[in-house]
Amino acid sequence: MTHLTQLRKYSAELVDLHHTLALMQWDQEVRMPRRAAEGRAGQFATLSGLVHRREVAPELGALLAEVEASKEGLSVEDLALVRVMRRQYDQNTKLPEEFVSEFSRLASQAQMSWLEAREQSDFAIFQPLLERLVIMARQQAEYLGYADHPYDALLDLYEEGLTTAQVEKMFVELQAPLVAMVKKFAGRLTPLSFGEPFSPAGQEQFAQHLLVAMGFDFSRGCLARSAHPFTTTLGHHDRRITNRYAPKSLDFIFGALHEGGHALYEQGIAERLAHSHLDDGVSLGIHESQSRFWENVVGRGRPFWQRFFPELQQSFPAQFAQTDIDDFVRGINAVTPGLIRVDADELTYNLHVLIRFEIEKALIEGSLEVAALTRVWRDKYRQYLGVEVESDADGVLQDIHWSHGSFGYFPTYTIGNLAAAQIWEAYRQYDPEFSQTIGTGNLEKVQAWLGREIHTHGSVYLPQELLKRVTGAPLSAQPFLAYLEEKFTALVA
Amino acid sequence: MTHLTQLRKYSAELVDLHHTLALMQWDQEVRMPRRAAEGRAGQFATLSGLVHRREVAPELGALLAEVEASKEGLSVEDLALVRVMRRQYDQNTKLPEEFVSEFSRLASQAQMSWLEAREQSDFAIFQPLLERLVIMARQQAEYLGYADHPYDALLDLYEEGLTTAQVEKMFVELQAPLVAMVKKFAGRLTPLSFGEPFSPAGQEQFAQHLLVAMGFDFSRGCLARSAHPFTTTLGHHDRRITNRYAPKSLDFIFGALHEGGHALYEQGIAERLAHSHLDDGVSLGIHESQSRFWENVVGRGRPFWQRFFPELQQSFPAQFAQTDIDDFVRGINAVTPGLIRVDADELTYNLHVLIRFEIEKALIEGSLEVAALTRVWRDKYRQYLGVEVESDADGVLQDIHWSHGSFGYFPTYTIGNLAAAQIWEAYRQYDPEFSQTIGTGNLEKVQAWLGREIHTHGSVYLPQELLKRVTGAPLSAQPFLAYLEEKFTALVA
Repeated sequence: MTHLTQLRKYSAELVDLHHTLALMQWDQEVRMPRRAAEGRAGQFATLSGLVHRREVAPELGALLAEVEASKEGLSVEDLALVRVMRRQYDQNTKLPEEFVSEFSRLASQAQMSWLEAREQSDFAIFQPLLERLVIMARQQAEYLGYADHPYDALLDLYEEGLTTAQVEKMFVELQAPLVAMVKKFAGRLTPLSFGEPFSPAGQEQFAQHLLVAMGFDFSRGCLARSAHPFTTTLGHHDRRITNRYAPKSLDFIFGALHEGGHALYEQGIAERLAHSHLDDGVSLGIHESQSRFWENVVGRGRPFWQRFFPELQQSFPAQFAQTDIDDFVRGINAVTPGLIRVDADELTYNLHVLIRFEIEKALIEGSLEVAALTRVWRDKYRQYLGVEVESDADGVLQDIHWSHGSFGYFPTYTIGNLAAAQIWEAYRQYDPEFSQTIGTGNLEKVQAWLGREIHTHGSVYLPQELLKRVTGAPLSAQPFLAYLEEKFTALVA
Repeated sequence: MTHLTQLRKYSAELVDLHHTLALMQWDQEVRMPRRAAEGRAGQFATLSGLVHRREVAPELGALLAEVEASKEGLSVEDLALVRVMRRQYDQNTKLPEEFVSEFSRLASQAQMSWLEAREQSDFAIFQPLLERLVIMARQQAEYLGYADHPYDALLDLYEEGLTTAQVEKMFVELQAPLVAMVKKFAGRLTPLSFGEPFSPAGQEQFAQHLLVAMGFDFSRGCLARSAHPFTTTLGHHDRRITNRYAPKSLDFIFGALHEGGHALYEQGIAERLAHSHLDDGVSLGIHESQSRFWENVVGRGRPFWQRFFPELQQSFPAQFAQTDIDDFVRGINAVTPGLIRVDADELTYNLHVLIRFEIEKALIEGSLEVAALTRVWRDKYRQYLGVEVESDADGVLQDIHWSHGSFGYFPTYTIGNLAAAQIWEAYRQYDPEFSQTIGTGNLEKVQAWLGREIHTHGSVYLPQELLKRVTGAPLSAQPFLAYLEEKFTALVA
């Protein structure tokens, strides 16, 4: 066996084991009986430990070095495989095993403490844990290494190559125009509200219908229910999503479109990348661009509802028989500055992310104490969004990320939003009849283009490289701002 | 760490990994998308390989030897742990790795060939594969070793300590009385038939209701749908069952009771045995005794339906509003010699097993050629059951077992039937008011006794030892024959 063949085999084995871990998590969210939780955590720890030992094995390091030593003649894909495996090997081996297990122990504790703190809406409960998590995250950045700013090391974990300076520049471009647009459009579109509840079975059926229309392949995936919607990959031909069905909310639609967008990305990866580290979306930002593309750019647009609103009315006459399509489209785009990130509209969403970015950066560089967090949170929400934070639960405790020890994750949401608009611009150049295409329900055309341009490549190209291939330009805030301006101007007209 | 502590830790890790493998199989039957099958097989192979290497590791052998060298003072349970782990270690290490993987490759091929043969009802398609499987099973027996008969080695795989001589003696006691009873009772009870289909949702709800009544704990298990009902364990607090819902059959009831019986055994294992090799039913025969106890002894008895028939009528008025409870109980016990084992009534079932036992024994000792199987099958069905085999599909190709390479499994079904009746006899001594107990739906009392006497012990006692503790006697055919005689005499009265 050549070294390359051995490396491919090593990759396939690790991918198999990671898919097995993903199955354990899927089952935990979707089916596992209540009292099995502790046992499952133990099983997960056992298998993770085994996988980790394979991932940091000197054997793998030696194999990588051998392949790297004779790269000439390797295909683009083999080079990418080496790149991705090298990156993960370095990340895994730079962190001492003792540190990793301490961090993961602390995170388990922190999650329980966060849950309790949020329930009691009392940040003081979570504060000591968060202080320790921040110290460990700084330590993590030191282990991983960085050129300019320790936060760079953490950003890079979620979005390869992303730096603090880039994120700062992105928000400089975004902040003022967003604040101006929020001022201009807030309160001018009437939100929807419902007297009658939507039946869960009806919601599920409609979600399924939209997924089929988008091109989700049910022979290679499935839709289940869970407390929080998510997408996961259990195998090349096994990409699954979940959704949830609240009685009086349209989340079932946008949840399905969002997770469907993630899943289409995964289902679209070329078969020749199966069973390797390349059989995966390339970064969180690019992944989010696909979910946001379907959820917001397509799914909150008028053409989409031109096609699907009559069916929505038919499925839920009690809620929609008397509703006009334009009122509906205005309602699902209502701009209302609020306290909760996950409920935010397209205009305010990235201001929520900006606040988290500024706080994370300051925590990691040490210019902000955890003790000052509630005050800073309140101040920033007042300043950027004009809203008053009245409780810790709806303020600093609303997101789970920090309790996982994840710092540097939030900016990928904004990258996703910007990339979605930039990709949309490229799509419109390819298909100037886009309104007609979507309005007649020819979503296959959209999906085929995304598949060709983005999905099929899996992790072969770096995120920024991929975006440039698709759109001809590096990531920029301008297409997103132009998209918002055009869309909301039309909606309030 | 003492050697014993190390051994316990080793056991816990292996148990975690086996539960993970069980999750992969559960998901495959219950949820996995169609096209994921090949990928899942690869994942399963990857993890099985890893587990196998841990199971045959010389490190484990050394640890076992250390603990065995200083057994004095060990508790009954620790001794049992050593016994069970030693048995599995020996089984695993006696078979060369090359042999195991060749056998499993052959079995995969054989399953596909068996499916095709059954579909075309043509034994000739399967014959060459079966010939090779028999040769490998004989080889397996040689590797494993035996005292008297090579078939002993295979029986022991499924029922620790079981020998060919014991099975022969069992069938000698059974055969003539069974044949006589079949003659006496066949055709005297009218089977049920249904014009209206049962709705799948209604069937599932009723099955769930029965499971709750039996004592199945839904916080430590769940019920799903699959093509073939089964029970599986994914953790100490995670024992799951499946059922299926055909339109015009009562299989949903007896499937639920059968799988429920298996699951109650598993759910009843003492918590202190959790996370070890003892956290498991002790053998296939004892396991089957629990499923048959609920399915047949309880579930086809009049007292059970005294309690549940009114509810069945209420749930399915179209099918049962006009049915008398006695006709119903007679109907579910109708005796009809037939061709298919899994459809057989209590009187004929073990004759189907006898035929398979005689054939397996002859194949393994080499006194029967695979080529003669269809003829021998036809002759035995004519002789023992008085029925004419008209196709291979409904004859020699009806069971999946041989295509898995499993020889020696069938007799455990009969052991289960006999043990169930013997346990029932013991229960009746403990609770002479048993008819009243069950007739008023006090199934907790039955379940509590089974739990105390059998379930809680997991794999601590050897199967035959356990049965003797519970019933005061070794396994015998007499209680079963007495149970049948009493039951069917009453039914035809």
